[in-house]
Amino acid sequence: MGVQRKGSLLSFRPDIKVLDATLRDGGICNDFYFSDAFAKALYQMNLAAGVDYMEMGYKASKALFDPAKFGKYKFCDEEDLRKIVGDNKTDMKLAVMADVGRTDFKKDIIDKKNSVIDMVRIACYINEIPTAIQMAEHCAKCGYETCVNVMAVSKAKDEEIDSALEMLGESPVDVIYLVDSYGSLYPEQVAKLTLRYLEYGAKYKKRIGIHAHNNQQLAFGNTIEAASWGAELLDMTVNGIGRGAGNCSSELLLGFLKNPKFHLTPVLSFISEYMLPLRESGVVWGYDVPYLLTGRLNAHPSSAIRFIKEKRTDYAAFHGELLDRD
Amino acid sequence: MGVQRKGSLLSFRPDIKVLDATLRDGGICNDFYFSDAFAKALYQMNLAAGVDYMEMGYKASKALFDPAKFGKYKFCDEEDLRKIVGDNKTDMKLAVMADVGRTDFKKDIIDKKNSVIDMVRIACYINEIPTAIQMAEHCAKCGYETCVNVMAVSKAKDEEIDSALEMLGESPVDVIYLVDSYGSLYPEQVAKLTLRYLEYGAKYKKRIGIHAHNNQQLAFGNTIEAASWGAELLDMTVNGIGRGAGNCSSELLLGFLKNPKFHLTPVLSFISEYMLPLRESGVVWGYDVPYLLTGRLNAHPSSAIRFIKEKRTDYAAFHGELLDRD
Repeated sequence: MGVQRKGSLLSFRPDIKVLDATLRDGGICNDFYFSDAFAKALYQMNLAAGVDYMEMGYKASKALFDPAKFGKYKFCDEEDLRKIVGDNKTDMKLAVMADVGRTDFKKDIIDKKNSVIDMVRIACYINEIPTAIQMAEHCAKCGYETCVNVMAVSKAKDEEIDSALEMLGESPVDVIYLVDSYGSLYPEQVAKLTLRYLEYGAKYKKRIGIHAHNNQQLAFGNTIEAASWGAELLDMTVNGIGRGAGNCSSELLLGFLKNPKFHLTPVLSFISEYMLPLRESGVVWGYDVPYLLTGRLNAHPSSAIRFIKEKRTDYAAFHGELLDRD
Repeated sequence: MGVQRKGSLLSFRPDIKVLDATLRDGGICNDFYFSDAFAKALYQMNLAAGVDYMEMGYKASKALFDPAKFGKYKFCDEEDLRKIVGDNKTDMKLAVMADVGRTDFKKDIIDKKNSVIDMVRIACYINEIPTAIQMAEHCAKCGYETCVNVMAVSKAKDEEIDSALEMLGESPVDVIYLVDSYGSLYPEQVAKLTLRYLEYGAKYKKRIGIHAHNNQQLAFGNTIEAASWGAELLDMTVNGIGRGAGNCSSELLLGFLKNPKFHLTPVLSFISEYMLPLRESGVVWGYDVPYLLTGRLNAHPSSAIRFIKEKRTDYAAFHGELLDRD
C-alpha cells in the first residue's frame, strides 16, 4: 500500500488505549440486567487489568424505553453509576453510549462537573452524521470527551465515508470510530478503511478507534489489523460478550498487547467467577453459523438472533431465506 | 513489505485448492470413531461443495497403535476407505497423513496403482526433515502426490526454517505446508512466514499450503492472510473440528473464496445433520480460554486439553502453571 504499519508485533505502542464495552454491548444480550456484584467486580477487574476506558452502558431515553423492561445500564443514571464506581478517583475513564434518535441528550447529558462520566460515545448511521455532530457539540460544551461511532460502515459507499469523515473532522469530536456492526469486513478491508480514517484523523487531529464484531471469527484479527496501521482506541468485551456473535475478546486483546500496563490475570479470574455463571444462567452470545451467514452477506444480525432464539438449526434454509431477501 | 499481495478480496484465484481435514484433525477429538454414515455423507458433501482434497485420516502403524482403541480413520486401510469412497472416480483427490516415526511407511504405503489414495501428507517436526524426505521419496516413487507438513514452526528459529525449506526444496515433495500447530501465530507473522516459504517455493517450484489452529480465534484470519500472499493449499474442517481449539472452519473459508466452483450450502446442511449431533454426543472442540493461553505462550495444547477434560475453570491458576513451566 506504500504505507508503513505503525509498529511490529513486539512494539510497545503507548498510544493504544483499550475500551471495555462489556456492560454496553454485552447488555444487549441480557437487556442490561447485570447484578451490582457483576458490575462492581468488572469495574475492579478493569482497573486491575489496566483498561483505559470502561463503557457503563447506554444513555437511552426513558420516554422511548420503559425502565421496567431494562436493567439500569440501559439508562446509566448518575446515582446508579456512582453506586458502582463511587466518584471514580482513578486513571480509568468512564464512557456511555448515546444513540442518535434514542437519547434525550439535552436533558440527560448533564454538565460534566456533576457527572462521573468522562466520555460520551455517539452512535449513528452514516446518514445521521449531522445529528451526531449536534449531539457531540452539546457533549463537548458540557465538558466531555466525545466519540462518534459510525455504524454499519460496510454498507456505505466510499464517497459517503469521505464526506462523513470530512464533516466529523470539522466537528469538535475527539475520536472517530470504525464500526463493523455486521461483522462482515475482512482484514484487508479493515486495513483500507483504517487508512482512510487515519488520513482524515491526521488532517483534523482526531484519534481513530475500532469496534469489531465476531460473525466471521475476525473480531480480534480485525482489531489488531486496525491497530497495526494506527488505530488507537480498541473496543473489547470480556469473553467477547455482545450482540449476536459478540465482540473482540478482552482476553485475546490484552494477551496480545505489549504495553506492560496491561494485565491478563484479572480478566481470567473474572471469566471464571462471573462470565461462566452468566452463560450458565442462559445468556447467549458468540460465534455461530447463522451469524457467519448474516456477516458474510453484510446484513444486520437480527434475523440470525431470531433464528437462534427459535432454536432452529436448518442453516441451509436460513441461508436461502437471507439470499431471497437481498 | 515491498511485495504485492497475490489478489484482492474479489479476485478469483483458480490456483487456490482447499483440503478438508475433518476426518483427520477432527478424528483427534473422538479417537477417529466416525460412523460410516458420517464419513459417506462428508465425502458426498465435499464433492458437492467443490472441495479439492479430502483427507481420510492417518496412516498410523498398528504396531504402535492398538486398532482396538481407535476408529478406522487412524489407520486408513485400503478396504475401509473403499467402503466409503468406492474407487473415487471423481475430481476430488484423497489424502492421508503419515507421521514421521508413527507410520510403517515401507509396509503400509503401497503402490499408488493399488490404492484409492492420491496424496500422502507427511507430518514432522523441524528436526525430523531428513526422515520426512526419506518417506516422501518412498511415496513419490510409489506414485503419490506428496506434502510435508512441518509442525510447530512457531518454535523454530529462522535459520532452521531456511535450512528445512532448502532441504524440502531439493526433495521430490510437491507441497510444503506452513503449520501453526499451537495456534500461536498472529497474521503479521503468518504473512512473513508465508513469504519465506513462497521464496523457496518459487526457487524449487513447490506449492505452499497453510494449516492453522484457532487458539486465538485466528485460524480463518491467518488462512486468508497466507492465501492473500500466495499460499495455494488451504486446510479446513467442518465447523472447525480439530485438536483443542480446532482449525479453520470450512463454512468460513468457502463463504469467503470467490471461485464459483465452491458451494457453501452443502456444508451448512452437513453441519445441521452431522456436526450438531456429533457435538451433542459429547465430542468437544473449539475456541476456549485455556487454548488461548497455550497458544499465546506458544505451547502444545495438551495441558489445555487436560484442563478442559478435568472440567477445571480456574483459568488464572492454569495461566500461572503455564508460566511456571516455561
